[in-house]
Amino acid sequence: MAIGNYIYEFGRQTDGDASRRALLGGKGANLAEMARIQLPVPPGFTLTTEVCALYREAGKKLPEELWEQVQTAVRHVEEQQHKRFGDADNPLLFSVRSGARESMPGMMDTILNLGLNDGTVIGLKNRTQNGRFAQDCYRRFIQMYGDVVLGIHAPDEHAADPFEEILKNIRQEAGVAQDPELDESSLQELIRRYQELIRRRTGREFPQEVGEQLRGAIGAVFESWDNERAVIYRRKYNIPSNWGTAVNVQAMVFGNQGNRCATGVAFTRNPATGEKQFYGEYLVNAQGEDVVAGIRTPQPIAALEREMPESYAALLEVRQKLEEHFCDMQDFEFTIEQDRLYMLQTRNGKRTGLAAVRIAIEMVDEGKISQDEALRRIPADSISSLLVPVFDEGKKSSVSRIAQGLPAGPGAASGKICFSAKRAEELQAQGERIILCRQETSPEDIRGMLASEGILTSRGGVSSHAALVARQMGKVCVCGATAIEMDYAGQTLRCGEHRLSEGEAISLDGTSGEVFLGSLATAPSEVNRVLAGQMPAEESYTYRLFDTLMSWADRRRRLGVRANADTPAQATEAFALGAEGIGLCRTEHMFFEGQRIDFMREMILAESVEERKAALAKLKPLQRGDFEAIFRAMQGRPVTIRLLDPPLHEFLPQDEETMKVLARRTGLELGKIRLRVAALHEQNPMLGHRGCRLGISYPEISEMQAGAVFEAVAQVLAEGISVAPEIMVPLVGFADELRHQVALIHAAAQCVMRDRNCVLTYTVGTMIELPRAALVADTIAQEAQFFSFGTNDLTQTTLGMSRDDSGSFLPQYIGEEIVKRNPFATLDVEGVGQLMQLAVERGRKTKPDLKVGICGEHGGDPDTIQFCHRLGLSYVSCSPKRVPVARLAAAQAALQAENP
Amino acid sequence: MAIGNYIYEFGRQTDGDASRRALLGGKGANLAEMARIQLPVPPGFTLTTEVCALYREAGKKLPEELWEQVQTAVRHVEEQQHKRFGDADNPLLFSVRSGARESMPGMMDTILNLGLNDGTVIGLKNRTQNGRFAQDCYRRFIQMYGDVVLGIHAPDEHAADPFEEILKNIRQEAGVAQDPELDESSLQELIRRYQELIRRRTGREFPQEVGEQLRGAIGAVFESWDNERAVIYRRKYNIPSNWGTAVNVQAMVFGNQGNRCATGVAFTRNPATGEKQFYGEYLVNAQGEDVVAGIRTPQPIAALEREMPESYAALLEVRQKLEEHFCDMQDFEFTIEQDRLYMLQTRNGKRTGLAAVRIAIEMVDEGKISQDEALRRIPADSISSLLVPVFDEGKKSSVSRIAQGLPAGPGAASGKICFSAKRAEELQAQGERIILCRQETSPEDIRGMLASEGILTSRGGVSSHAALVARQMGKVCVCGATAIEMDYAGQTLRCGEHRLSEGEAISLDGTSGEVFLGSLATAPSEVNRVLAGQMPAEESYTYRLFDTLMSWADRRRRLGVRANADTPAQATEAFALGAEGIGLCRTEHMFFEGQRIDFMREMILAESVEERKAALAKLKPLQRGDFEAIFRAMQGRPVTIRLLDPPLHEFLPQDEETMKVLARRTGLELGKIRLRVAALHEQNPMLGHRGCRLGISYPEISEMQAGAVFEAVAQVLAEGISVAPEIMVPLVGFADELRHQVALIHAAAQCVMRDRNCVLTYTVGTMIELPRAALVADTIAQEAQFFSFGTNDLTQTTLGMSRDDSGSFLPQYIGEEIVKRNPFATLDVEGVGQLMQLAVERGRKTKPDLKVGICGEHGGDPDTIQFCHRLGLSYVSCSPKRVPVARLAAAQAALQAENP
Repeated sequence: MAIGNYIYEFGRQTDGDASRRALLGGKGANLAEMARIQLPVPPGFTLTTEVCALYREAGKKLPEELWEQVQTAVRHVEEQQHKRFGDADNPLLFSVRSGARESMPGMMDTILNLGLNDGTVIGLKNRTQNGRFAQDCYRRFIQMYGDVVLGIHAPDEHAADPFEEILKNIRQEAGVAQDPELDESSLQELIRRYQELIRRRTGREFPQEVGEQLRGAIGAVFESWDNERAVIYRRKYNIPSNWGTAVNVQAMVFGNQGNRCATGVAFTRNPATGEKQFYGEYLVNAQGEDVVAGIRTPQPIAALEREMPESYAALLEVRQKLEEHFCDMQDFEFTIEQDRLYMLQTRNGKRTGLAAVRIAIEMVDEGKISQDEALRRIPADSISSLLVPVFDEGKKSSVSRIAQGLPAGPGAASGKICFSAKRAEELQAQGERIILCRQETSPEDIRGMLASEGILTSRGGVSSHAALVARQMGKVCVCGATAIEMDYAGQTLRCGEHRLSEGEAISLDGTSGEVFLGSLATAPSEVNRVLAGQMPAEESYTYRLFDTLMSWADRRRRLGVRANADTPAQATEAFALGAEGIGLCRTEHMFFEGQRIDFMREMILAESVEERKAALAKLKPLQRGDFEAIFRAMQGRPVTIRLLDPPLHEFLPQDEETMKVLARRTGLELGKIRLRVAALHEQNPMLGHRGCRLGISYPEISEMQAGAVFEAVAQVLAEGISVAPEIMVPLVGFADELRHQVALIHAAAQCVMRDRNCVLTYTVGTMIELPRAALVADTIAQEAQFFSFGTNDLTQTTLGMSRDDSGSFLPQYIGEEIVKRNPFATLDVEGVGQLMQLAVERGRKTKPDLKVGICGEHGGDPDTIQFCHRLGLSYVSCSPKRVPVARLAAAQAALQAENP
Repeated sequence: MAIGNYIYEFGRQTDGDASRRALLGGKGANLAEMARIQLPVPPGFTLTTEVCALYREAGKKLPEELWEQVQTAVRHVEEQQHKRFGDADNPLLFSVRSGARESMPGMMDTILNLGLNDGTVIGLKNRTQNGRFAQDCYRRFIQMYGDVVLGIHAPDEHAADPFEEILKNIRQEAGVAQDPELDESSLQELIRRYQELIRRRTGREFPQEVGEQLRGAIGAVFESWDNERAVIYRRKYNIPSNWGTAVNVQAMVFGNQGNRCATGVAFTRNPATGEKQFYGEYLVNAQGEDVVAGIRTPQPIAALEREMPESYAALLEVRQKLEEHFCDMQDFEFTIEQDRLYMLQTRNGKRTGLAAVRIAIEMVDEGKISQDEALRRIPADSISSLLVPVFDEGKKSSVSRIAQGLPAGPGAASGKICFSAKRAEELQAQGERIILCRQETSPEDIRGMLASEGILTSRGGVSSHAALVARQMGKVCVCGATAIEMDYAGQTLRCGEHRLSEGEAISLDGTSGEVFLGSLATAPSEVNRVLAGQMPAEESYTYRLFDTLMSWADRRRRLGVRANADTPAQATEAFALGAEGIGLCRTEHMFFEGQRIDFMREMILAESVEERKAALAKLKPLQRGDFEAIFRAMQGRPVTIRLLDPPLHEFLPQDEETMKVLARRTGLELGKIRLRVAALHEQNPMLGHRGCRLGISYPEISEMQAGAVFEAVAQVLAEGISVAPEIMVPLVGFADELRHQVALIHAAAQCVMRDRNCVLTYTVGTMIELPRAALVADTIAQEAQFFSFGTNDLTQTTLGMSRDDSGSFLPQYIGEEIVKRNPFATLDVEGVGQLMQLAVERGRKTKPDLKVGICGEHGGDPDTIQFCHRLGLSYVSCSPKRVPVARLAAAQAALQAENP
């Protein structure tokens, strides 16, 4: 089979197939698979990811026995291509390309035309009868090799690349504007100077021995797995560093041999919108990265039908074969050499969230995949992109539309112009919303793209680096807006009469490709408009997609989905998005608005129980009103209300000026206010006098809150609307704390039932948000009718890590993989998860049918939802906007559990 | 057996015995036991603690069926005493006294002479031929009944007791100074006014029906279990509130029938020093509480030999019989009625720590108990009292000795005079050291006594309330210093020419009974002097006691005992007190002294790694010197050094003024200092950038510290002293954090070994102080050679409770028994203990012989040590002074585990 376990061939003999991604990387596995289904793939071989692991473990050294195996594989390619590697007469050339398990576009390095030297370049010229072509291949090779293998770059991002600098000089000397205009002798001079540069920089000659060239290239590609941009990319997409990359060595075919040659990139469907249309672009007489580099703006794929009708027909056939075989939208690279089509790569196409939803649903309609497969395939977060605001069409006429580009990343983004990735990062850190404006983008810009709201390029097509990355990041992107001129030196952007500088606002409509001056107002998405009854469902195809997907998800999921909502407006939104209840209604947020904060402060500054009760009495009707509105919005679905949680000092002014205002407004002595503020100060408020500790110190607060809830329940019941209130006691660590509060709450209910002569049904439960609560969940369950995990605090206490303060070390931890994921975004299953599991087991040992939910921010995170499903939780609760994501993730969790 | 399960008799028929303490209370069980061994006990019966529980559960109502059983029991006493309860001719009187499982002296209520009314008082007079005596008994009864059952007290502590007020008027009218001088008719008038007071206050007549009297008294005694002072006492001594009290109803005998009568209290050995001498005091012609109330200063027991030789001989016989039977020092109450001795109570005597040690060891010498029993019996904390400083004898001549009292609580105490318990509490809260000065103390003074360093009374003997409570609290006490006059109104204390006001300093020598003016210098205890080689061992009996006890303990214990020591001086002390190593050496404490804080601040303010390294280089030799001295002091015993733990802002000045000083001293810009201080500020520093997080962010800090350790090791080894260093990484939550630091430490060791051409042996381990660390202890153990529980932080994180901030609610929690013990003093076994158990199991699953210790402050707490023994820990580590306590507690834990 494979050659000595390190090498898998494809071509005449094919060792691998699409199922071997982990070993061969995505590119290698799919080259093998295409070879198997008789697509025209130039022969070659793949060095496995295991070699990469060995290389990294051995301190960047290739295994000794590898080289012999490479030579065998090279011989096999020579036989198929009837050329010899390093042969001065009829040279075989190779491309050497990385290929990781998950596609990491542009992150790692590629070397083309390997095998050229001062001798073989003559052979190539003679064989192709094209001296200019041969020298162009050679100069490209030296440039890539010098950069990737020999490490000759610009010293920093502002300096020019030394190879490009030489190329520019040669163009000037030759008096030409574009590289293709350089003639053979200019190219020869260019090569001489490139070789001189290498000699000067490395103290050695450019290697003429093709074996040495190949060895160097393989090492450098493995090396590129650990380059800075790849590491950043992995971090963002949670790709483990120990996966490693494979290296693909493949016989070269040439899209740059003349006008019957081309190279291109195509998608079987539109990756931005998901529409079923052939989509892509190509460049005539070009090689490799020319298409995606964005230097020349390529032709749309449709143009090929006219220029090279046979090749176009062959491409359409490939398109169909690929979709039928892979049952997913494919993104593939091809080269046409003298009217002959070659396939260089295929992979499942990266797509926007909208496209992910549309393609999956339409493929179900087409019978290509099952509903379950569609549910599995759509990243849960994708559904959000159907809900993000769009520009208000009605307002578009009120601003200037300054340019039209290609719609490469759908959505609406407004922000301040910025011309470099680094600056974008800086401004974002200062809280600015940024639109990154570049001629084209390159892998060095990744971090700046991440920091931006949207990306605008003046060059490059829909498969350019900018478009590709923006799609994957879910960023709004308009590319190839050719009317715009980016003047980096002047830090301005010119477009007709408009001249904009850094900091001025523009707006990008990534769905239409339009660029507007200033900040354009947004409007709710179609889905939201339908849900709000502002648009008929049948008018919106997007809504049909949303509704279909949600109905499939709801059939599959077993976890309930609730929302965290503190206000009637949030409750209404949650209800519309399908929340089955409110899992967390934080009552303290009700104490900040308007006059309420004054009453709250009076309460806190009270010097006796009587004074405190008097202040609470003013708050009670306001709270009751909020509860009534929330109950009405939820129409009988359960509403979990948490009693006051934060420490009291959060409600008091901390600075002298506000204290003075408070003194004037309340008539309290300033000195007393100062003293009380000082007395309430805490070293570690997270671990201080808060949660149920407040309700125990000041029972009258819990009494007021419970009273307000029950009075609201009675009122709304009287209106004929059913209500299912669940009162939740925060920060319980000891069963007796809960017992204390439960008694108060029952007494408050009794009181309302007596006064109003009615019967109220309700439950009382607790947050599990302290390690101790999880550990003694069996005793706490005796007092509780339900549990709800407060995973924010549970994470902070279990890890001994304050979310507010972790900024000083957590980024480094994530960078060095000391922690694998940010534990405040995705639940730390290994640690916090153990406590949750204990709590569920012990709680249900006491009460087998105990309802257990989660209401921390993790409740909207798909990976955490997977875990919650496995734990057997009753529901997850998340922010209203995340409800659809959670519904889909819950379905995926159920599918995953059935068929892992 | 018992009458209907509620009532146990003693006398002619005895149902209970000493083993039934839980049911009968200590007093009831021992009355039964004394009756069984033929000691002269007046007959009576005990209402069990279960009745108390029923009474409390039923909302303070006695069980219906109880009364019939009481009547049966009363009839049985009548038969034995040949008197009838309520009989106007020959009345039987009862005492009604509380008696809990654990003695709670003076906490609950007692009623004597019950059964007297306007009729029976005549019968008593006729039978005894002593009208004055009969009326005195009646007035005492009415007064006690009025107070205890009818609730007629002074409205607050400053007001006079209404009964005492009337008594004072009667004395004035009769022109006498003392109560015994009042004649029969005055007493009759007194009784009339008492009855009038009751009528006025309650609107009802004083009850004449003796059954009603008995019922009321029983209820009131049960009630007194929940009075404020009993609740406070229970809280201090961790007595569960559900234990309840029994009630003892016993035939009265009278020590107040004339000059052949007396009442007294005695100890079989000296409870203050433990000396084997008969010890106690008595009052002729007195009843009940007169002895301990401290109103009349009683005679020392020796005087009885002269006054009533037969009774004294009988007492000596009782003393011997009691010790032989109970095999422990007894504290007993007796009454002599017309030369006949009656025993009213016996119990194991409360004793000082010193006495506990001496009595137990001497009883082993006497063959009364085994070594194991001696180890079990001595409260582990007692050993501390052999180590507390004493007054420097050489300095005594330099201050005025103003009075001599009875040595009632040994030790040395200096502090400011204060005349009321309440004021003592206030001043202590302000950080003052207080000597509470009272004529006598009463149960109302308990909290003030707790708040004081020492207690001085001008009246009362060695069994007075003050002496008794001081002994139990381990407070220094001088009582009955009759030369001193306490002037509460003038808030002064007069003694000869001296006149001292609140706030002036005095010193009490509780071992000699001396009172000195001003603050007297202290000197180390005898034990410490012997250990320091300043006194020959054979000259100190106390040292012999200490050494004997420690040698017994060391033979029995299986837990190692180490000390927490940060300085060479602490290490020397720890070594002398028997520490087998240092379990925690906190390196940060080394950064505060002298110039070091400046270097530390330079390090923190550094703007580059180079600057930081330069500052660290200045700190390194200072740290190395400390380590060398500690290693020398420990002579080859293991020393666990913890790397820097606290957040860096703890080292920076927080106020503007100190920042300016720092700017001047370091030449740094004030603005930069301000910015850095602000940047380092944290919301919750407990959960912030500290522990190993610092060592990961600034590896150069860990490198410097490890380097300093290893250089010190090399130096001390070169001196021919062996060294066993253990480097401990703090606040680890993830295995990779530890891996990161372990690699640095190994590298630092390699470096020193290379430079000095030597071989160093050392181990590297981690604190387990975060819940996550305990949960993933299996993976952490892969990187660690030892674990050490940091239970301070583990408690804070597990409970989500900041020790610094818990003062605002924890006292209430303890008061309401929401938490049973202060979790920062005694380990929360139910919660934190579970995590420790997990960590031990999982750590040892990875490494079966993993060494696991504890170095939190809980390491010196005897109850926690019990738990650590059960967990199978390798050692506990505590402050040097607690090392002997821990050695004893560890032995007790081993004994307890063998024979629970």
